[in-house]
Amino acid sequence: MNTPRTRTPLIVAVVLAFTCPLQAQFGGQGPQVASPEVAADRHVTFRILAPKAESVLLAGSDIPDLGQGAQMKKDSNDVWEVTLGPIDAGAYRYNFNVDGVSVIDPRNPATSESNANTWSLVYVPGSDFMDTRNVPHGAVAKVTYWSTSLGRFRRMHVYTPPGYESGQGTYPVFYLLHGAFDCDDSWTSVGRAGFILDNLIAAGKAKPMVVVMPAGHTGPFTFGRRLPIDEFTKDFVGDIMPHIEKNYRVHTDKARRAIAGLSMGGAQTLSIAIPYPDKFGYVGVFSSGIFGIAGGMGGAPEGPSWEEQQKDILDGTELKKDLKLVWFATGKNDFLVQTSRASVEMLNKYGLDVVYKETDGAHTWTNWRNYLNEFAPQLFR
Amino acid sequence: MNTPRTRTPLIVAVVLAFTCPLQAQFGGQGPQVASPEVAADRHVTFRILAPKAESVLLAGSDIPDLGQGAQMKKDSNDVWEVTLGPIDAGAYRYNFNVDGVSVIDPRNPATSESNANTWSLVYVPGSDFMDTRNVPHGAVAKVTYWSTSLGRFRRMHVYTPPGYESGQGTYPVFYLLHGAFDCDDSWTSVGRAGFILDNLIAAGKAKPMVVVMPAGHTGPFTFGRRLPIDEFTKDFVGDIMPHIEKNYRVHTDKARRAIAGLSMGGAQTLSIAIPYPDKFGYVGVFSSGIFGIAGGMGGAPEGPSWEEQQKDILDGTELKKDLKLVWFATGKNDFLVQTSRASVEMLNKYGLDVVYKETDGAHTWTNWRNYLNEFAPQLFR
Repeated sequence: MNTPRTRTPLIVAVVLAFTCPLQAQFGGQGPQVASPEVAADRHVTFRILAPKAESVLLAGSDIPDLGQGAQMKKDSNDVWEVTLGPIDAGAYRYNFNVDGVSVIDPRNPATSESNANTWSLVYVPGSDFMDTRNVPHGAVAKVTYWSTSLGRFRRMHVYTPPGYESGQGTYPVFYLLHGAFDCDDSWTSVGRAGFILDNLIAAGKAKPMVVVMPAGHTGPFTFGRRLPIDEFTKDFVGDIMPHIEKNYRVHTDKARRAIAGLSMGGAQTLSIAIPYPDKFGYVGVFSSGIFGIAGGMGGAPEGPSWEEQQKDILDGTELKKDLKLVWFATGKNDFLVQTSRASVEMLNKYGLDVVYKETDGAHTWTNWRNYLNEFAPQLFR
Repeated sequence: MNTPRTRTPLIVAVVLAFTCPLQAQFGGQGPQVASPEVAADRHVTFRILAPKAESVLLAGSDIPDLGQGAQMKKDSNDVWEVTLGPIDAGAYRYNFNVDGVSVIDPRNPATSESNANTWSLVYVPGSDFMDTRNVPHGAVAKVTYWSTSLGRFRRMHVYTPPGYESGQGTYPVFYLLHGAFDCDDSWTSVGRAGFILDNLIAAGKAKPMVVVMPAGHTGPFTFGRRLPIDEFTKDFVGDIMPHIEKNYRVHTDKARRAIAGLSMGGAQTLSIAIPYPDKFGYVGVFSSGIFGIAGGMGGAPEGPSWEEQQKDILDGTELKKDLKLVWFATGKNDFLVQTSRASVEMLNKYGLDVVYKETDGAHTWTNWRNYLNEFAPQLFR
């Protein structure tokens, strides 16, 4: 690095004479509100300036004790405020409900994209596995590809580990699928996948790997309606995998390919890994299983069951060849715990030797980050 | 690609028994609102469900004729709506102001991050240079690094061109800086930098290159206060460039390094490229110049002027050696047009041979995307 040849240049004030609405955002309208404010003791204060509102609620996902939301209180400056905590270290999605309108925090640029909306995101530090630490960091890229099966452009996120971008080596590849209320951004925003992998790799606990996070929804998602998992499978096998194998330096043998997913992504994982028995040596299912297997998940489908459809493969030898790990984890309070148990039992009936773990907690990102942190170290051994 | 071994698996309905506030987001509260809706004739309709609001405004950047904002009208379903257009093809930031609260569009997951907040983003297709086209696409990565000069983690965005992630070649590198109301996300969200480069490279108009988009703010930005450009210069020269040159396959000679920036980023560009005369063969300044040079940009700084500080370098030979291009562009209605003109005149006095272009328009992303599309093809020739 050169030494600068002159003194540091003096730069004068920038009086940006914007006449555009940006000014409204930054001008002197009311008090400067800081939100969210994360205290050292892990209490988090949320604030929003809403002078005319009659009621402001805080809503969020996975924040302990928040439940259906917290009523915020207005101070003399028209700022609505609530403090929660102490909150466990982690990333949390939240938004405000101002008189019936869901809004993100106007003072917080950090967001986490979902399937049909965007949440504000707050990170509470203090975790030994997902904090941003002074270790080599990989890159998390947005990648656009053309889906021939869907006839439109699609996006995925791709994590490349430290060393990938400067080097020439070839890496194992791990496909990581999101849930029904998520999109391809979710695993690396609220899910902290990049930082979790960075920390595992730096500690020598996980092998450097490329992690591919596709978009799992192929159309509008409506609560309670049948998911078109077959559409996603076509996109995945016909476009996503070929795109990655053409554009990234990844291995293409079963022993160096893994797949996992949470909730909807777990069902998709099984709907790809079993029907394509030559592709994945490692299979992870988080808070999920074969939808419909345990009842209570909607009406029984017409025609043969999933098990009946896959019976030849489950009975055969190709699936088990080089199948290193089938790993399930679900929270004891997860609404899909029965589905997980029944799926594990069914797969074990065919000798798949599923490793099954029931943890505390429910259907939460808190659990899914933990599961990723446990699953990734077991890959490509 | 293998043929699946079984019929497409039947997947039954997913009745996600969430009890968390996600349900409020997706449940049957009121009519399903579609927003934004971009019609084929480039009219755009914005909608928000806000039953109790007294007034809802649409605010946005660069949308022609929108000015300070548009009043939205409420229909019988409590949905506020306004239609604008036809709007020129491009990406536009917008938000709603609901009774004084700035909120993004609750129904639109697409966002563009700014320095202190996040905007909703709408894309109006129809551009020949920035649409998402069926060409090979590069990757746009978020990269975390430790800034030794600032003592904290920082983020940058890095575009790697098609072929980079699969290959082993070494590429020229272009550092692209944002403005005062932006962050490192802005050039690739509202700025469409990735798609602009994809299209230029596919057409053979630009060389494949790595584009590095750092975060230009080193602290809270307050309207009208002096920008600490020297802090950014330290981070840039001491951490950002070394990080890139260590972690990416990029050339490190002056003839294969470029730098450009808009507004604040243009001033930063000059505050890096001139004091470090051995580093950049291509210099671009969009809607900017030496702040303070033409008056009207805040009080004169104490001490010697920027020109006086840089005089030895401007007079010397090292800066001009391998300096292939200094390119300025500014809109005729840009509030910084006088600053641009005076900066060009001053630099030309020292024989820098500045190429200067005045275009229609003002201080807008519309212009900055055009400038990127004109500047990038001239690099590394």
